Amino acid sequence: MIEPNFRHTINGQQVATAIAQDYQTNKILMVAFINKQAYHKSIETNYAHYYSTSRDKIWFKGEESGHTQQIKEVLLDCDSDAIIFKVKQNGGACHTGHYSCFYKKLSSNGQDIIEDDTDIVFNPDEVY
Amino acid sequence: MIEPNFRHTINGQQVATAIAQDYQTNKILMVAFINKQAYHKSIETNYAHYYSTSRDKIWFKGEESGHTQQIKEVLLDCDSDAIIFKVKQNGGACHTGHYSCFYKKLSSNGQDIIEDDTDIVFNPDEVY
Repeated sequence: MIEPNFRHTINGQQVATAIAQDYQTNKILMVAFINKQAYHKSIETNYAHYYSTSRDKIWFKGEESGHTQQIKEVLLDCDSDAIIFKVKQNGGACHTGHYSCFYKKLSSNGQDIIEDDTDIVFNPDEVY
Repeated sequence: MIEPNFRHTINGQQVATAIAQDYQTNKILMVAFINKQAYHKSIETNYAHYYSTSRDKIWFKGEESGHTQQIKEVLLDCDSDAIIFKVKQNGGACHTGHYSCFYKKLSSNGQDIIEDDTDIVFNPDEVY
C-alpha cells in the first residue's frame, strides 16, 4: 500500500500532517497528525483515524460523538509528508459544535479574533 | 497581537501547523510549519513565511522563485495550534511546477498514485 512519509517526530511518534477537507465545498474541517497505524486503519475502514498527540493514541474521529468522516479521496503532497482526506463529514468536525474547527478569523489589525458562529451544527453539551 | 499556540516541538522549535489555501477556490496549496518569528513576519509583511524543518530557518515563501503568497485572511482553529493563510498565490505553490503541492491522488485500492498534471503552471528548470 502507498504510504505517506511519516517523517515528523511528535511525542516520539513518527507522523505526517493530515488535513480533513469537505469533499464537496473544499472547506477545511480540521488538521491533525497521523501515524502509520492510524493511516492503515483509515484506508482499511474508509473512515478517518488520526494520532492524538495529547492522548498519545490512535483516535477514530467520531468514535464518541458519532461525527465520523467518511473518506472519499486521499491526496498526498509532493514530498508525501502531508495528506488530505477529502471527506463526507457527519455532524460537525469540531468539539465546539462548529462544522469546521477553523471558525476564528484574525481581525485586519491582528489584535482580535472574530468568531464565525454561522456554522454551528450541534450542541456540545448534548453530545459529549 | 493574537498568536497561534506554537505547541508542537519539531527540531527543537515550537511550531504550529500552517495551511495555505487559495482565497478564491479554497484549493489547498501546501502545508508547512510556522514558528513565532515566521508568524510575525507574515502578519507584518502580509506575505506568508514559514519555518523550514529541513533547513531549520525562517522561509519567505517565493523568495527565490517569486512565487509569493499574499495573505488575504488568517484563520485559527479551535485550540489555536493550526492556522490557515487564505492567499493569492503568485505562480505556483509547488517546487515541481504544480499550482498545488497536493497533485498526487491515491488510487481506490490504495496501491498506486495518480498524478494530476493539469495544474502545472511553470517549468521548475526555468525557475530554480
